[in-house]
Amino acid sequence: MVYNAVVGQSGGPTAAINSSLAGVVDTLVKSDKIGKVFGAVNGIEGILGGNLKELSEVFSKKENIDLLKQTPSSYLGSCRYKLPKEDTHKDYEKIFEVFDKNNIKYFFYIGGNDSMDTVMKLNAYSVKNNKNTIVMGVPKTIDNDLWGTDHCPGFGSAAKYVATSVLEIALDSYCYDTKSVTIVEIMGRNAGWLTASSALARSKNQSAPHLIYCPENAFDKDEFINDINNILKTQKNVIVAISEGIKDKDGNYILASSWGAQDKFGHAKLGGAGKALENLVAEKIGCKVRSVEINVLQRCAAHFTSKTDIEESFKIGKAAVKAALKGVSGNMMIYKRKKGSEYKVEISSMDINEIANKEKMLPENYITKNDVTDKFIKYAAPLIEGENKIKTKNGIPLFIKR
Amino acid sequence: MVYNAVVGQSGGPTAAINSSLAGVVDTLVKSDKIGKVFGAVNGIEGILGGNLKELSEVFSKKENIDLLKQTPSSYLGSCRYKLPKEDTHKDYEKIFEVFDKNNIKYFFYIGGNDSMDTVMKLNAYSVKNNKNTIVMGVPKTIDNDLWGTDHCPGFGSAAKYVATSVLEIALDSYCYDTKSVTIVEIMGRNAGWLTASSALARSKNQSAPHLIYCPENAFDKDEFINDINNILKTQKNVIVAISEGIKDKDGNYILASSWGAQDKFGHAKLGGAGKALENLVAEKIGCKVRSVEINVLQRCAAHFTSKTDIEESFKIGKAAVKAALKGVSGNMMIYKRKKGSEYKVEISSMDINEIANKEKMLPENYITKNDVTDKFIKYAAPLIEGENKIKTKNGIPLFIKR
Repeated sequence: MVYNAVVGQSGGPTAAINSSLAGVVDTLVKSDKIGKVFGAVNGIEGILGGNLKELSEVFSKKENIDLLKQTPSSYLGSCRYKLPKEDTHKDYEKIFEVFDKNNIKYFFYIGGNDSMDTVMKLNAYSVKNNKNTIVMGVPKTIDNDLWGTDHCPGFGSAAKYVATSVLEIALDSYCYDTKSVTIVEIMGRNAGWLTASSALARSKNQSAPHLIYCPENAFDKDEFINDINNILKTQKNVIVAISEGIKDKDGNYILASSWGAQDKFGHAKLGGAGKALENLVAEKIGCKVRSVEINVLQRCAAHFTSKTDIEESFKIGKAAVKAALKGVSGNMMIYKRKKGSEYKVEISSMDINEIANKEKMLPENYITKNDVTDKFIKYAAPLIEGENKIKTKNGIPLFIKR
Repeated sequence: MVYNAVVGQSGGPTAAINSSLAGVVDTLVKSDKIGKVFGAVNGIEGILGGNLKELSEVFSKKENIDLLKQTPSSYLGSCRYKLPKEDTHKDYEKIFEVFDKNNIKYFFYIGGNDSMDTVMKLNAYSVKNNKNTIVMGVPKTIDNDLWGTDHCPGFGSAAKYVATSVLEIALDSYCYDTKSVTIVEIMGRNAGWLTASSALARSKNQSAPHLIYCPENAFDKDEFINDINNILKTQKNVIVAISEGIKDKDGNYILASSWGAQDKFGHAKLGGAGKALENLVAEKIGCKVRSVEINVLQRCAAHFTSKTDIEESFKIGKAAVKAALKGVSGNMMIYKRKKGSEYKVEISSMDINEIANKEKMLPENYITKNDVTDKFIKYAAPLIEGENKIKTKNGIPLFIKR
């Protein structure tokens, strides 16, 4: 018997989530076990609202699969909707009504921690109520904080963009013969994987970033100023990478607004950790200082992605469909890194109950108080390898129309 | 007789200034009329301090010329030093002493408006005092505001980066099913060329940026809110591009004026226009709003440059040397766009006195109150064409060691 399938995307955009979508859709469209292939518009909200989009026709063309692979953000739209705890809630009934109505047996959800919670809950509901729906999670997050997988699709491209940007910002700062501190604020509220990746900017040609502060360690302002002063003894320009989520020993976020800075109207000046530390350096050291927030571009820049990441993201999407067609359900797809000096991964899957609602932080032996260790470099370096030759038109990247 | 030559870089970094340097140095090194090729470390400050670096050996190797071409920022270091008005000042004597001591007859200065002021003054001094020094300016600025040239080296790459980033930020904002306003703040103190270039993000696939505000027009907060509200009537996500230098009808910078900070040249230090308008939208419209400052990456990102720009920047550097060897002095090299539907430029030079201390703003027929015209698109589109395949190592761009 032939069933239909639906795929959704959820959580923050990445440069690789559409590559996983391409892998899922390409495999579904080519399978003779699958009838129609639907996309859930804006994730689980699209299913709740019956807002499904037929994908089979557009994505039976290879050129559209290729364009989707190189398009950032979420082609199907995203959401941040968390299913209620009680499985008696009408949401569940509604979702499975939509599945039944559309003859949907397969549901693929591409996302991060909250999305895996959805996968877990829908799978549990299906099992409990004998719905026989196959529910599969495909990981995605630039934060790299999903449990059970060596790394997450999207992380490698974000890490490559961050390392490249920090390198370019460093070269920019080196050009003046003036003492200066440049603070680069990087995404990752709880886990410092992306901030740590700034270390990949280093080479025998240049040593920035000179200091790296991840949220896994308590942040101490005095130590921070000491660290910078120590480096300023031997060089003029200091480049510092900090996570947006650094906190002091009492667990309070380092934010500019909490330090009493005000604009001319007496409103607290809004600003994150970068702005706060910029003010601190200006006050305590008094040299030229600036903070740079890499902002959303670190998650949605598709013009310089990791070939390793984009290709793996495509493959993990394909593997999710293959596993589902074999009857696997309630699992998230994972990367397992093979032992040996050469980087190789194999793709398998893991029970979603072992994964959902956990966060994978940087291990202690990957970081020091103000830097990363060689172990981290060894882990992260292969993930940013390779460049994708992306298709452009009129000088800008060509992305698929939504 | 064989003389030596010196080349310096000045002003803010760009992704193309080293390509012009490569053009200058490559041509000097290969010329039998030239002895030693010096680089002035940190521009005119390096000459004043006698801090010269011999370049001939490193850049007789083609691989180093190629690496220099793809390296952003200023290889020789930069400065923001303005020569005094009075040519009796000891600076002038000092500079020509260093030239004499090092048998330097040729001086090439790659930079923007302030650097062209230096070229004008040194040439005038040389003529007045029969020094026979050849002083040549090579344009460079992401602001595209130098007089006399169709466009400036560095602008095309910055424009490509801005258009690409605005496109990617737009895709990022489209992913949620929520009303939102995204404000992208773009460099350009007085001239809106780079802000206007955000329009190159548009294609038949997507319409962002929906509003563009350049500093050439007085900025009106009420009109701004009306403009956004009008667009929100028919679509959910509005992307706005604004220049960091927008001013109200009385000439006050939006928010920045409250800080009163000035740089060495008396330019107001800018920042915060995006944040100011983010606050305004939150207050007046009340929807989800964020501001993104593209920051220094728009001038120093070398990982996605315009092939047209990088190649032209190399050629204009070469042409500067060729002109100088023919005895041309006190000129800045310029691009002249040829008439006809196909984009073609020829490189020539113009008297520095016609160029220095002028600023080229966007012409009236290139912009409207909140957008650009087709005339602007026709002007700017060819400048971002083509991608450079850059050499990478370990997943990040390979840049030459300083």
